[in-house]
Amino acid sequence: MQTAVQKPHDQLAAFLADDMAAVNVMIRARMASQHAPRIPEVTAHLVEAGGKRLRPMLTLAAARMCGYDGPYHIHLAATVEFIHTATLLHDDVVDESQRRRGRPTANLLWDNKSSVLVGDYLFSRSFQLMVETGSLRVLDILANASATIAEGEVLQLTAAQDLATTEAIYLQVVRGKTAALFSAATEVGGVIAGANDAQTRALFDYGDALGIAFQIVDDLLDYGGAADTLGKNTGDDFRERKLTLPVIKAVAMADAEERAFWARTIAKGDQRDGDLQQARAIMARHGAMEAARQDALAYAARAATALQVMPDHPIKDMLRDLADYVVARIA
Amino acid sequence: MQTAVQKPHDQLAAFLADDMAAVNVMIRARMASQHAPRIPEVTAHLVEAGGKRLRPMLTLAAARMCGYDGPYHIHLAATVEFIHTATLLHDDVVDESQRRRGRPTANLLWDNKSSVLVGDYLFSRSFQLMVETGSLRVLDILANASATIAEGEVLQLTAAQDLATTEAIYLQVVRGKTAALFSAATEVGGVIAGANDAQTRALFDYGDALGIAFQIVDDLLDYGGAADTLGKNTGDDFRERKLTLPVIKAVAMADAEERAFWARTIAKGDQRDGDLQQARAIMARHGAMEAARQDALAYAARAATALQVMPDHPIKDMLRDLADYVVARIA
Repeated sequence: MQTAVQKPHDQLAAFLADDMAAVNVMIRARMASQHAPRIPEVTAHLVEAGGKRLRPMLTLAAARMCGYDGPYHIHLAATVEFIHTATLLHDDVVDESQRRRGRPTANLLWDNKSSVLVGDYLFSRSFQLMVETGSLRVLDILANASATIAEGEVLQLTAAQDLATTEAIYLQVVRGKTAALFSAATEVGGVIAGANDAQTRALFDYGDALGIAFQIVDDLLDYGGAADTLGKNTGDDFRERKLTLPVIKAVAMADAEERAFWARTIAKGDQRDGDLQQARAIMARHGAMEAARQDALAYAARAATALQVMPDHPIKDMLRDLADYVVARIA
Repeated sequence: MQTAVQKPHDQLAAFLADDMAAVNVMIRARMASQHAPRIPEVTAHLVEAGGKRLRPMLTLAAARMCGYDGPYHIHLAATVEFIHTATLLHDDVVDESQRRRGRPTANLLWDNKSSVLVGDYLFSRSFQLMVETGSLRVLDILANASATIAEGEVLQLTAAQDLATTEAIYLQVVRGKTAALFSAATEVGGVIAGANDAQTRALFDYGDALGIAFQIVDDLLDYGGAADTLGKNTGDDFRERKLTLPVIKAVAMADAEERAFWARTIAKGDQRDGDLQQARAIMARHGAMEAARQDALAYAARAATALQVMPDHPIKDMLRDLADYVVARIA
């Protein structure tokens, strides 16, 4: 293995290759339906588009790092991927998306009905998988994560274009969109391995902080990163009137004229040529991008620090590298 | 109590009034959301429209009949109602419904997004409630029921207008739409009360048969019942091209000309004046309505028979009466 040049994600994938293969077998087996062939059709479209499988890998990594050698980390990794896939299917209906992972979305290829119902089916299948582990604590963690995810999604719906959205609400939405499943993924890996309370808590903290850092970096890159250059794929969030972290920070510091600008472009959605540049200029004036960047770095550092109580293990180093890597593009 | 003139459902409601009040308190507490006020708004719209609460009542009835005096039948009854409410929210999106329980649907009052995401939230909350019971067996039953429900819904999507739909597929769809939650509702009531295996199995059978009888009666009434008169609300299933049980039976016995009729009206959806009368005439020719009626009576009888192994209890008589009552309109 050429670990020196591999990305942390690829290092983990190589180290956990056998486990990941077992997860893929289980996903394929459990997404089948004896009665409704539409279900594996829709699921395969998404599952085989091949996302990075980061969430199930986090579960496997946490379990192995804690010395687990039983069978149930595979069930839990498949559980986490099914929950993720179910939320993607429902998100595409909610966002009326047309493309996902470079392919047309399921709601476009089939219909919204199929996306809603197949999402429900995958959620039920994930529920069966976790019941098979026989761990009430795992069930408790995943039930709570599911509620946080759904609550965050509803909150995003109502908070999306509301200039009164605070950083606290933003965090709640981000936990729902991203961090709740990251933190549940790592925590259940530790729980199934019988990790002690401090380690279980550390695994939760790692996933939570990693997920939040991940999302803030996403927000920053959409405005061209912390640097003063605009990339070619920037501006989507602005056009879609999303209240991401740098915008929330800029709104909080806005004078009357700037407030009118945000009210027009984000709250009302009346956007004109040059508005994106103007948004960036206002954010620069208040150091909003830089402040968000510092937040992302702090969350990545918090993730790395959380790992300190974990036992020495090659995976521990890879997870720390992963936390650094997530913010490398804005560092 | 004037039990002699009360319907079995009202008898049960009166007998279980204290428990039902506790369920309502729990539903109200758990549908709240600290962060997203949209959630209780949407849920209250549906929950307070006041369906009959038949499913949670079945759970309470089963638990009490088995001598339960702990607290968790309340959690399970609320769980069952949340799952039911979540499926209604998603069904309305799938069916593009405009009215439910005499009121505009949530997808019409808010939007499809809210219906999808609030449904997800309620499903997660139901999941938390059942984890609180600490019973892995209950979790297993409800996980399997959830999968059957979702699979049945997807199957209905693809089988709906397909003339090749068999009675076996119909049963699978009906289990998903109705019977799986009925049977889980009664079974978990027994399980939480520590009922023995024979009784637990009987409670499952009762709910399963009751749910199927319930749905077949619904099918029959939509064509005016087994009698040769058309009520004023009949014909909806025909206009919506649903392959209900009497139609499936008639299609199975159709000659070439009749087959062409069903292909035109149901598979293609090309319907003209007089087609509903013609459909009824074809079904009458083959005794399809009468055969479906016999099926419904047999399922109701099966539900009543299943109760034989249950201990003597006033609720046992009410549940037997309920099975009779379900088919009384076509008896």
